[in-house]
Amino acid sequence: MKALVYQGPGKKSLGDVPQPVLQEATDAIVRITKTTLCGTDLHILKGNVPTVAEGRVLGHEGIGVVVQAGSGVVRFKSGDLVVISCITACGHCEFCRRGMCSHCEKGGWMLGNTIDGTQAEFVRIPFADNSLHPIPENANEEAMVMLSDILPTGYECGVLSGCVRPGDSVAIIGAGPIGLAALLTAQFYSPADIIVIDHDEHRLDVAKKLGATRLVNSSNRGTVEKAMAMTMGRGVDVAIEAVGLPETFEICQSIIAPGGHIANIGVHGQSVPLHLERLWNQNITITTRLVDATTTALLLKSVVSGRLLPRQLITHRFPFGEILSAYDIFAKPSHEKALKIILTNSFPEMSAG
Amino acid sequence: MKALVYQGPGKKSLGDVPQPVLQEATDAIVRITKTTLCGTDLHILKGNVPTVAEGRVLGHEGIGVVVQAGSGVVRFKSGDLVVISCITACGHCEFCRRGMCSHCEKGGWMLGNTIDGTQAEFVRIPFADNSLHPIPENANEEAMVMLSDILPTGYECGVLSGCVRPGDSVAIIGAGPIGLAALLTAQFYSPADIIVIDHDEHRLDVAKKLGATRLVNSSNRGTVEKAMAMTMGRGVDVAIEAVGLPETFEICQSIIAPGGHIANIGVHGQSVPLHLERLWNQNITITTRLVDATTTALLLKSVVSGRLLPRQLITHRFPFGEILSAYDIFAKPSHEKALKIILTNSFPEMSAG
Repeated sequence: MKALVYQGPGKKSLGDVPQPVLQEATDAIVRITKTTLCGTDLHILKGNVPTVAEGRVLGHEGIGVVVQAGSGVVRFKSGDLVVISCITACGHCEFCRRGMCSHCEKGGWMLGNTIDGTQAEFVRIPFADNSLHPIPENANEEAMVMLSDILPTGYECGVLSGCVRPGDSVAIIGAGPIGLAALLTAQFYSPADIIVIDHDEHRLDVAKKLGATRLVNSSNRGTVEKAMAMTMGRGVDVAIEAVGLPETFEICQSIIAPGGHIANIGVHGQSVPLHLERLWNQNITITTRLVDATTTALLLKSVVSGRLLPRQLITHRFPFGEILSAYDIFAKPSHEKALKIILTNSFPEMSAG
Repeated sequence: MKALVYQGPGKKSLGDVPQPVLQEATDAIVRITKTTLCGTDLHILKGNVPTVAEGRVLGHEGIGVVVQAGSGVVRFKSGDLVVISCITACGHCEFCRRGMCSHCEKGGWMLGNTIDGTQAEFVRIPFADNSLHPIPENANEEAMVMLSDILPTGYECGVLSGCVRPGDSVAIIGAGPIGLAALLTAQFYSPADIIVIDHDEHRLDVAKKLGATRLVNSSNRGTVEKAMAMTMGRGVDVAIEAVGLPETFEICQSIIAPGGHIANIGVHGQSVPLHLERLWNQNITITTRLVDATTTALLLKSVVSGRLLPRQLITHRFPFGEILSAYDIFAKPSHEKALKIILTNSFPEMSAG
């Protein structure tokens, strides 16, 4: 089958690899119909994610059709249209029982990391009963792809960990797909203000359309002062870090109000200074989190009902065979005004079963 | 009246100062019967707390008798025996309404900071209705002094912010009075294990008596490795930082389990490295907090019932006139095996009204 394969730092190829087969009774094989690219894939390609071995098929997002289900799979059968979660969950271990499936003792983030992923024609999904979600008949398929990672990540790691409440002033630092997913889902809780901070004017325009009440372009001077002025000098109740750099985490610490929450979503490659010398008595909370994907089914209902409209995050569409061009565009998002890119596999020979 | 006066960095004196008088209708004047010293007083004397002006009477803990109540005070009258809270709360502002009295717009930590404090014969208490607590008849007066600061601080900033739950592994880093107050109150929630880490063998002995299940002497090598071995390599669910140094905050980050809480109590004078490069995906929560003293009345009931026995933290007793000797002892706690020191004012002329 065709697949996008990591060939070591800086190298990738679109090539032929063996089609996956069932390994455990709880596995399912899914024929991928739509997949997408994630900022994490770019991190991997830079060689920054040491768990990813050369030869790995990348990708942890997508939807598809179950073509084979192991004898231990009870929720899915061949022909079912499914969302693939970026988090694989055994459902049995202490962490899964606590709802912290990101740290599942036998799962977690495996796809496109420690096992072959979704940027392919087929993928093997371990613990299929806990790692797939059925797609209802009337659902928009492109919107469903947003449920694999960015919607639950923005919601769980940003909105829920940040404890967004009605009346809050919320700042979202970084208006990439994850920050925008946090922006969409923060509105579930009706905050008074959502300030979006980014250096890219196009992304700020998108944020405005998606519900941001105020914008700060951080490529100009005085980002912190502007955000403080927007909250009458008080600071924000929730700061959602959706970038992963020391500078953006620094902004969060500078604009957080007493009693506020800093919810980190960004993938950081280095330590950052934590200003306990001024924050020790400010009653603040800082959270980190890898998405547990425990809210995926809930978010799916909101997408189906039209309460949540994630297709707005999709800017480009390609056939899967043009994935290398998609990567080129995704690697320079400012230039290409790219957010999420949908890649579609066509299987003309495909039947329903 | 006699009072302990801050005379600028490194200098203090026991001298005569004017007796305080009512300034607002919501004030009360309290004749101090017992007070104590806090590590924060030592910070002030080093010149590290810039809000404290020269000439300030120090102290934010104590009990006493109301000798005068302003016309707006409804809960207290002359003759009432009261606990003085270290936090002054107007009760009306947004922060007070949210239970975050530490950030009261007209109060917060004022005593011995921005107004004269309790290391004196008399003290003026603003917003007396929200800043004093009545002492029941059968209460032990020394135990009541522990309610001014250390019990609510250990409980709110350590145990509540750390979300201690039954079955948890808890580590308390620092077995000074605040760490030991956290140790006493953590037991409300029946954690499976409480590991106390300190470099002072005597304090570890005290911790053992007060309920620590495991001890680590951090003056030896391998503190992190020992704590990890005690949790079978998993780390602790809650790490309570009760010191205020980069090294001790570092220990917390090294021993925290996925999904764990780091509750900072320590007063920090400098920033610390936050290891987001390894913690970004560990689902951890870090909290900071100045005590709000919203649990003081609850803790008072637990002390009166005998469920909480804070007198165990008292190691020395002096007449108030010997407060300078008490400071000498408190400044070298390891040598003197000092925890809390009670200073008693005797008023032979005093009547009940």
